[in-house]
Amino acid sequence: MVGYAFMGAAHSQGWRTAGRVFDLPLRPELSVICGRDAQAVQAAADRHGWASAETDWRALIARDDVDLVDICTPGDSHAEIALAALAAGKHVLCEKPLANTVEEAEAMTSAAEAAHARGQIAMVGFNYRRLPATALARRMVAEGRIGTLRHVRLTYLQDWLADPQSPLTWRLRKEQAGSGSLGDLGAHIVDLAQFLAGEQLTGVSALTETFVRRRPLPGAQAGGLSAVAADGTGEVTVDDAALFTGRFPSGALASFEATRYATGRKNALRLELNGERGSLSFDLERLNELWYHDATEPDEHAGFRRILVTEPGHPYLEAWWPPGHGLGYEHTFVHQARDLVHAVAEGRTPEPSFADGLQVQRVLAAVEESAEKNSVFTPIAV
Amino acid sequence: MVGYAFMGAAHSQGWRTAGRVFDLPLRPELSVICGRDAQAVQAAADRHGWASAETDWRALIARDDVDLVDICTPGDSHAEIALAALAAGKHVLCEKPLANTVEEAEAMTSAAEAAHARGQIAMVGFNYRRLPATALARRMVAEGRIGTLRHVRLTYLQDWLADPQSPLTWRLRKEQAGSGSLGDLGAHIVDLAQFLAGEQLTGVSALTETFVRRRPLPGAQAGGLSAVAADGTGEVTVDDAALFTGRFPSGALASFEATRYATGRKNALRLELNGERGSLSFDLERLNELWYHDATEPDEHAGFRRILVTEPGHPYLEAWWPPGHGLGYEHTFVHQARDLVHAVAEGRTPEPSFADGLQVQRVLAAVEESAEKNSVFTPIAV
Amino acid sequence: MVGYAFMGAAHSQGWRTAGRVFDLPLRPELSVICGRDAQAVQAAADRHGWASAETDWRALIARDDVDLVDICTPGDSHAEIALAALAAGKHVLCEKPLANTVEEAEAMTSAAEAAHARGQIAMVGFNYRRLPATALARRMVAEGRIGTLRHVRLTYLQDWLADPQSPLTWRLRKEQAGSGSLGDLGAHIVDLAQFLAGEQLTGVSALTETFVRRRPLPGAQAGGLSAVAADGTGEVTVDDAALFTGRFPSGALASFEATRYATGRKNALRLELNGERGSLSFDLERLNELWYHDATEPDEHAGFRRILVTEPGHPYLEAWWPPGHGLGYEHTFVHQARDLVHAVAEGRTPEPSFADGLQVQRVLAAVEESAEKNSVFTPIAV
Amino acid sequence: MVGYAFMGAAHSQGWRTAGRVFDLPLRPELSVICGRDAQAVQAAADRHGWASAETDWRALIARDDVDLVDICTPGDSHAEIALAALAAGKHVLCEKPLANTVEEAEAMTSAAEAAHARGQIAMVGFNYRRLPATALARRMVAEGRIGTLRHVRLTYLQDWLADPQSPLTWRLRKEQAGSGSLGDLGAHIVDLAQFLAGEQLTGVSALTETFVRRRPLPGAQAGGLSAVAADGTGEVTVDDAALFTGRFPSGALASFEATRYATGRKNALRLELNGERGSLSFDLERLNELWYHDATEPDEHAGFRRILVTEPGHPYLEAWWPPGHGLGYEHTFVHQARDLVHAVAEGRTPEPSFADGLQVQRVLAAVEESAEKNSVFTPIAV
Repeated sequence: MVGYAFMGAAHSQGWRTAGRVFDLPLRPELSVICGRDAQAVQAAADRHGWASAETDWRALIARDDVDLVDICTPGDSHAEIALAALAAGKHVLCEKPLANTVEEAEAMTSAAEAAHARGQIAMVGFNYRRLPATALARRMVAEGRIGTLRHVRLTYLQDWLADPQSPLTWRLRKEQAGSGSLGDLGAHIVDLAQFLAGEQLTGVSALTETFVRRRPLPGAQAGGLSAVAADGTGEVTVDDAALFTGRFPSGALASFEATRYATGRKNALRLELNGERGSLSFDLERLNELWYHDATEPDEHAGFRRILVTEPGHPYLEAWWPPGHGLGYEHTFVHQARDLVHAVAEGRTPEPSFADGLQVQRVLAAVEESAEKNSVFTPIAV
Repeated sequence: MVGYAFMGAAHSQGWRTAGRVFDLPLRPELSVICGRDAQAVQAAADRHGWASAETDWRALIARDDVDLVDICTPGDSHAEIALAALAAGKHVLCEKPLANTVEEAEAMTSAAEAAHARGQIAMVGFNYRRLPATALARRMVAEGRIGTLRHVRLTYLQDWLADPQSPLTWRLRKEQAGSGSLGDLGAHIVDLAQFLAGEQLTGVSALTETFVRRRPLPGAQAGGLSAVAADGTGEVTVDDAALFTGRFPSGALASFEATRYATGRKNALRLELNGERGSLSFDLERLNELWYHDATEPDEHAGFRRILVTEPGHPYLEAWWPPGHGLGYEHTFVHQARDLVHAVAEGRTPEPSFADGLQVQRVLAAVEESAEKNSVFTPIAV
Repeated sequence: MVGYAFMGAAHSQGWRTAGRVFDLPLRPELSVICGRDAQAVQAAADRHGWASAETDWRALIARDDVDLVDICTPGDSHAEIALAALAAGKHVLCEKPLANTVEEAEAMTSAAEAAHARGQIAMVGFNYRRLPATALARRMVAEGRIGTLRHVRLTYLQDWLADPQSPLTWRLRKEQAGSGSLGDLGAHIVDLAQFLAGEQLTGVSALTETFVRRRPLPGAQAGGLSAVAADGTGEVTVDDAALFTGRFPSGALASFEATRYATGRKNALRLELNGERGSLSFDLERLNELWYHDATEPDEHAGFRRILVTEPGHPYLEAWWPPGHGLGYEHTFVHQARDLVHAVAEGRTPEPSFADGLQVQRVLAAVEESAEKNSVFTPIAV
Repeated sequence: MVGYAFMGAAHSQGWRTAGRVFDLPLRPELSVICGRDAQAVQAAADRHGWASAETDWRALIARDDVDLVDICTPGDSHAEIALAALAAGKHVLCEKPLANTVEEAEAMTSAAEAAHARGQIAMVGFNYRRLPATALARRMVAEGRIGTLRHVRLTYLQDWLADPQSPLTWRLRKEQAGSGSLGDLGAHIVDLAQFLAGEQLTGVSALTETFVRRRPLPGAQAGGLSAVAADGTGEVTVDDAALFTGRFPSGALASFEATRYATGRKNALRLELNGERGSLSFDLERLNELWYHDATEPDEHAGFRRILVTEPGHPYLEAWWPPGHGLGYEHTFVHQARDLVHAVAEGRTPEPSFADGLQVQRVLAAVEESAEKNSVFTPIAV
């Protein structure tokens, strides 16, 4: 694993736990974790249960005891590491967004496809597909339970930038993060929308905005950032919020909103799908619940029902706790590890593939293009 | 009152009740109701408590015992009736949308302003401003409780057209209804957004769609509709759904969605405002509740709180029931009647004025223009 | 109508509105309202639309233009007025609780039954049976949708006495109110439980408590109260809270809690019924919603569904607004007036009859007896 | 660890994870797991990460590499194993309920207290104290945020026995389970009520019921059960539901309901505390949320607020994910392991102690006694 911050900890929990809960065809071993700071990465190895540590990701890739490389770094290093790992014959799991640019994502996808011919597996980490509730929603859409789709509506609302005094971190600098709310939050909801709808957006119309254009620099990081001002502030070079609408081939309309300024909303990835025969609704802040309206029932008794997605027959639930004993955020990473291990054992490309990650990247690029061009409807490159 | 269908019944309940609950400076008298079918309008008069009935709105306007004309007809007749009533020296309450075109709305606004100089009052019926919860939300925004505004998010979701076999009524024909979900539902949320924000949109980017382009004709009305096909269906000439984003002068972003295809959503006018200091959230399906997040509280105890807007100090609540004993939809019309009677007695133009109605019409026109021009961001005419 | 405070206003709104919304076989006329203060009762007559006023209820009963007497006074006068009205050949609607003692309620029930033989109608005002949601719940139970009943669980939580400085009103004195939370709130939930279950409790076990035993006297009323202390406080002589459990003949268990000390709960009459085939749940603070779980559905898609009880096929909804346009508290009184007018026209005893009111009184008496006897399970007298 | 079924899996996840997330003074090692079936226990050891397996718990206790014994067996074996482990100088974690009888619990408590003098730690596994939301609730009560307590209201509703054809397992036999819903669910809510209130019940009044008295025998277990009937059914010898009320020394009233027949309720441990200054409310089916009403705020803006208990300052949250990224059921066991390791390292008795477990057992015994004696209020033995 490369990287040991938030995502590193979450992925580690996934790798450690998957084989303790699910029947896996292979047993994952946590061989080596990599980070630039020797002391810190050794501490992370001890904490998270990795057998050894490296300070250069090239060394990690060179090791024979590494079969799969899990990339948990910021987006600007994804392409380089993934390409090297694939070239070295490793399987790869890459955190989302796949890359910071469409060009990088294209190169990664080509490399992944070539590697697949050699038996290698590559997957991108859109973990929210692997909540029991979203997986159930996808199953129900595929079964035709909501019929012809009319509307797909997603917001991903957080509030950690609402305070203008919140500091300028790498997530607010284009050179590292690629984009702001768009790549961080928007990528998730674009992927989920397409996953749930079972089709890909054909075009988008977008507005983006940066509400607070300068922010205080965090002391420790000030050195590494360009554009440091005399007043101790630095420039925010990514979007704070992105709103966009889109169209699906089926004729369904989609709306998206990603922001870090929705005061009081901590992790409100909310989605709703309305079809001719029914609707589905979900909120990540209540992740064990899926709401379903069956429009084929008599009006007298119809209503949105709260399915507590904790039954044995629900996705991933065969291995967990009794009904009503809810799961949490980190379980998406356990399920991701489980599904990836199965894919490796079976030699098939898992979803979401690098190609899926590339397609999301193209949607994000179209969003940025539309936002620059007065919101004009912008087709998604194919 | 002109018109006696759904809106006529609701307005009648408002007029009958306002003086029974509130202390009014004038006592409303229900003199005469007007409709084209003599028998039906007499039945409506008896049912709703009007002293007499007319079949020609010109006759109603000519009567000396009529001081105020309440227009509850479809949008295509608003302008003609309102202009005549104002010319005849009457006060006017006109249902929303003010008119089917910007031109009509301009003429009505000019007439209303001229009439105001003669002491006449004119008001447009955006009744959702007059829910205790929305009125409280406006008060809280005006008090600065949510601070600098970042996001305004509104949807108005209904589902009565989700079934493709649902018949073609006047609401689906452009010549009578002006537009579809846009004028019916979109007008409400545009007005509410601007009312709550306390500022007016500067431009919009929009998508509209008509999902079901032909529908069965209802027997009785088939004669009156153009474009009747041999197969017993007729063409839907209005939008089924409208999605748009917008910008406010303060820098806040807005998103809107109006549809009649959101299966299971019966009257889901949902709104959320996110400001730097807090947020407000509301759902018309739970109209006695306003949700408020105070971002100035310590994180440890902060959260969206459900204010049950039934306390004596809440707007309009001085006259109703004890705390927790909720109001319903029709109370908006009681409050509208109350506020209009006060305006008449005091000789001041009430909100929303015809000018407010015109401005909403201009936003809707910009939405239609943007939708026709590939969603390009379209400024609102001033 | 006798009495013109909170209940008088609510009943007036019911009488005024019923015939404007529903098709009634008889048209109610608001002839005369009665209260002890001549000036105040005349003001109430003007406000609420009554044609005349009286200051002595005996005079009201003596009038020929009065066919039905609606009793909205405190419980200590119910028996005397109702007996006189029945003796004078009038129909009677009596607010709940039917009386302050079982003895009074027995006398009233005998009189009502004798009067029924003479064609007179008598009804007790348990208005919460007449919400669309509770009426729908009863219909669903009767249809067998939840199967064999296991649990009935009701709370009625308010908070207006949580502040120990809240004054001593008539509702806190046994001689006028009969009991405290028990008769005020407990009576409602006992009636609803039995109405919904379709059976009558066989016995109860109870705890009651008075948390604050002395309260400040309200200035104006101090003269009329006994037990005024030198410190300006008076004794609370009723219960503040009552908790009880009970058994139904079917074997189902019931639990009840009534209190005015549940801080933040304004009108939280909450109920849930669990049967072998399903469950129903309701909260008066969201009175347009009924929650239903159908246990015969596959676990995969089952869940409590929120039925928005605003569809044309729902009880009382044939006459109101379109789906999703909610009703409020006062509509229970409109529906009560409607149902009573039908009963009068058809000459049949409506539910809840005085006998039903007497039976509730017997349950409350058993609760008090159990509470006095160390909570021992106490059978309900038949 | 002794036992490897549901609780064994959950505790294993706790032990494996605690040191990966929290800074612990000692590192837990998973030495040996014990069960009667050699093959099954070895499989459990492999699955859950235990270094070895035993088939006799006495052998496990005899091992030198075991410092702490975690007892996850049915209640009838708790006393014997715990007493032996304490005698052997081990620390002990014992699943709830502490024992099946008060006598056993007394012996265990005496042994634990004696062992404590020798430096040994003993704790009972009431894991629901260790949810961030319940721990925050306790903190807020202790800080005086809800003031003088008036009401404590808890239900624990499940539905897995609602189907009369659901089989007769060990949980339905008194000789193994001790009691039914009372010991399984009621024990949790009694412990939570007392933990949150910060005081112990003085007495209770109770109803219990067994709705379905005979159930089909599961094939495999039929041999081990007494009272097997010719028709393939066996007798249910425990309660299906238990309802009880109680009193606290402060004067607060409590109500409790435990059942496995609440159709559609999967794990609805719901609680509410009402105090003079505020209220707290929680539902285990939404375990990341605590609802708080602050009654000292002005009515105009007051309401129950939903605290998403995922902030860094919330209990246990210093070590988990960013705000809004919820935890699940199993995290209670991680927190339990963390707290127990700290207690062992520091040599202090953790809460809940065996004495706490004994006291809960006495409450349950009083519930059973009251239920047998016509619900008469029954003091809790001290």
